[in-house]
Amino acid sequence: MEEEAIVTPWEVTSTTGIDYLKLIKQFGCQPIDGTLVRRFEKITKMKAHPWLRRGIFFSHKDLDLVLNAYERGEEIYLYTGRGPSSESLHLGHMVPFMFTKYLQDALDAIVVIQMTDDEKYYFKESLSLDEANRLTRQNAKDIIACGFNPKKTWIFSNLETVGGSLYRNIVLIMKHTSGNMIHGIYGLDLNNSVGQFSWPCFQAAPAFSTSFENIFKDRQVLCLVPMAIDQYPYFKMAREIAQKLGFIKPATIQSRFLPSLEHAHDKASSTGQKEVIFMNDSRDNVARKIREKAFSGGGTTKQEHIEKGANLAVDVPYHYLLYFLDHDAELKQIAEEYRAGRMMTSEVKKKATEVIWEILREHQEARALITDDIVKLFMNPKRDFDHSRHSRESTAHDNEEQHLGFHFDPYFRSI
Amino acid sequence: MEEEAIVTPWEVTSTTGIDYLKLIKQFGCQPIDGTLVRRFEKITKMKAHPWLRRGIFFSHKDLDLVLNAYERGEEIYLYTGRGPSSESLHLGHMVPFMFTKYLQDALDAIVVIQMTDDEKYYFKESLSLDEANRLTRQNAKDIIACGFNPKKTWIFSNLETVGGSLYRNIVLIMKHTSGNMIHGIYGLDLNNSVGQFSWPCFQAAPAFSTSFENIFKDRQVLCLVPMAIDQYPYFKMAREIAQKLGFIKPATIQSRFLPSLEHAHDKASSTGQKEVIFMNDSRDNVARKIREKAFSGGGTTKQEHIEKGANLAVDVPYHYLLYFLDHDAELKQIAEEYRAGRMMTSEVKKKATEVIWEILREHQEARALITDDIVKLFMNPKRDFDHSRHSRESTAHDNEEQHLGFHFDPYFRSI
Repeated sequence: MEEEAIVTPWEVTSTTGIDYLKLIKQFGCQPIDGTLVRRFEKITKMKAHPWLRRGIFFSHKDLDLVLNAYERGEEIYLYTGRGPSSESLHLGHMVPFMFTKYLQDALDAIVVIQMTDDEKYYFKESLSLDEANRLTRQNAKDIIACGFNPKKTWIFSNLETVGGSLYRNIVLIMKHTSGNMIHGIYGLDLNNSVGQFSWPCFQAAPAFSTSFENIFKDRQVLCLVPMAIDQYPYFKMAREIAQKLGFIKPATIQSRFLPSLEHAHDKASSTGQKEVIFMNDSRDNVARKIREKAFSGGGTTKQEHIEKGANLAVDVPYHYLLYFLDHDAELKQIAEEYRAGRMMTSEVKKKATEVIWEILREHQEARALITDDIVKLFMNPKRDFDHSRHSRESTAHDNEEQHLGFHFDPYFRSI
Repeated sequence: MEEEAIVTPWEVTSTTGIDYLKLIKQFGCQPIDGTLVRRFEKITKMKAHPWLRRGIFFSHKDLDLVLNAYERGEEIYLYTGRGPSSESLHLGHMVPFMFTKYLQDALDAIVVIQMTDDEKYYFKESLSLDEANRLTRQNAKDIIACGFNPKKTWIFSNLETVGGSLYRNIVLIMKHTSGNMIHGIYGLDLNNSVGQFSWPCFQAAPAFSTSFENIFKDRQVLCLVPMAIDQYPYFKMAREIAQKLGFIKPATIQSRFLPSLEHAHDKASSTGQKEVIFMNDSRDNVARKIREKAFSGGGTTKQEHIEKGANLAVDVPYHYLLYFLDHDAELKQIAEEYRAGRMMTSEVKKKATEVIWEILREHQEARALITDDIVKLFMNPKRDFDHSRHSRESTAHDNEEQHLGFHFDPYFRSI
């Protein structure tokens, strides 16, 4: 019996591993290769983010057009979002935001962040609308703590914002989206609520700049959407509709999933029973979760480990280092030592704990400074947004760095 | 082969006549009888509108609760709407507005009028969103010309207004409306656009006062919706959802359809091929349309007419008099003479032309005075709405009038 990976915006499960190459093909996207990463550095004059070099953001649609536009001096903007369903974000939630913050700097781009309190109310049975709206403000603090530029960032609650130019585009989209499209792309049908059924149209709208009269007036500006690949179906649809409406098709850049602690092939999730690392966890909790829950690809006995080495492809602590240990040489060394059986799982887990705790500690410090007034500032629709571009000296060091990209990744391509 | 009448918000057709009693039963509504009409007069201290006495507004849901609330001194509000699809309204379109204006006076009620530019864009293939929005303002002039109280009336374009408290209620409704409900009530399915499919939720929201923070703050106020009976399914749904959300169920009052000129059993429509009388028609046009198109229930020859008389049930000019000739005694006399064959079709048509032209003339004069600024005033959401109730001497003359109601209507019950 062949088991298929299930990847929809609401479900990511697999027992045999997610075949990312197959997903790329299925979605009609392109892999991010070393050439594109090099060009990204050349044009933005920024060192490529480790997640670009390590094949974590591994796939794209029209990223080349984004770079062309940036090269010509044209404005582009970034769109990401969050369904506010938990008090604190977990590490997996942070990946798109951390990367979007990086892209904001690299592309001097306005960022719009859709807080989908309406969607969470539709899809999470036990959540009241007021509670979803309250969580929006809590989650906004975690997001702001990533360091977004307040002059270039608008965080908006759908519940508070749908209307005006945003609703106008939603209407245009809703007319050009048939029920059969929704069923075909998302599997939703007449058994779903109308809220669930119409939701994809509300998520598509921010990919068109004319939705934001407060920021772009009626200018058409190219949008780049960083996301985990499970969100791509929304933007495949948005691109089809853009065609029908004469809007610019949004470009996208997709990441793999941060694995759950228990299983390298599952997506981390705060809603399932799986253990995840929350951004407000204590050091002790992080250590305990990794020690007790993180799946090891090492040998079952010390002897076996020394003989056969670790299977990095299924080793969760190693995956977390791949995401969060910036230093390439150190990572490479750990990979080699661990794979060869010269480094023990306990050591790798300890390293992963250190690296992750450092990220959490910094995040917790930054978040503690985010007052309600700062949240208000970021959520204020009526202010002057900074569309300017800063000239910068190149911070890319072309000869010193590896530009791996998806196909050239020596450690991770088989994961 | 038994032919069924088809009555949905988008289609009203019948070859054998619409069985209104059957519709009442099917929808679970109550007929309006003489007792209720008497009580209406007693409580509002207003003479009942001819359309109440003549069984044109013939059915209701919870109208008795509205009267109870009014009697206790509580506020109620009225909700009606218009899909802006033509430059001018026709006579059939005016019926709910004329009656709502009457109810505004009788019940001292705030009126909200939803201009559904979004809906028309979904359902009318050739209409652009901008054009729908433009027609909203044109149609608003026809509506304002009915004489609505500017301090108690808000006309709003959905496109411009959805958002805030209105969107919040739409979200609440969309979660509690399943696709199967939409399919069951309206026959819509996956072949429809998401706009069409979700539309009923947008039409239901204004039936809950909390949708209008600008008028009612967060007060729950009972809503009465005057409408032609084809719109009832929306409010049957709204009542079910009100139950789930703990909102007050909207009350309704339903009219028959103003017949098309060609057929007493069809609804007048500006979108079909049927000839209709537009509010901006000239006197000559009205005369010509009635002379050439209005279906006659008289004999095919003068001799036959004198022998057998007219069949009022299918006679369109007579139906128009039933709607628009206020004077009961004169109407009764025409009915008797015409039915007995002593009055000719040409005479009845002439009378109908006179009566209708008088309505159009007055309307055209009133509409000519409605400037763009007056439209702006009526569409301005942020102003002080007048919630007060005016004390009045009774204008009902209980003993001089007939209170016919649906079941007691001697001329029209068989139509």
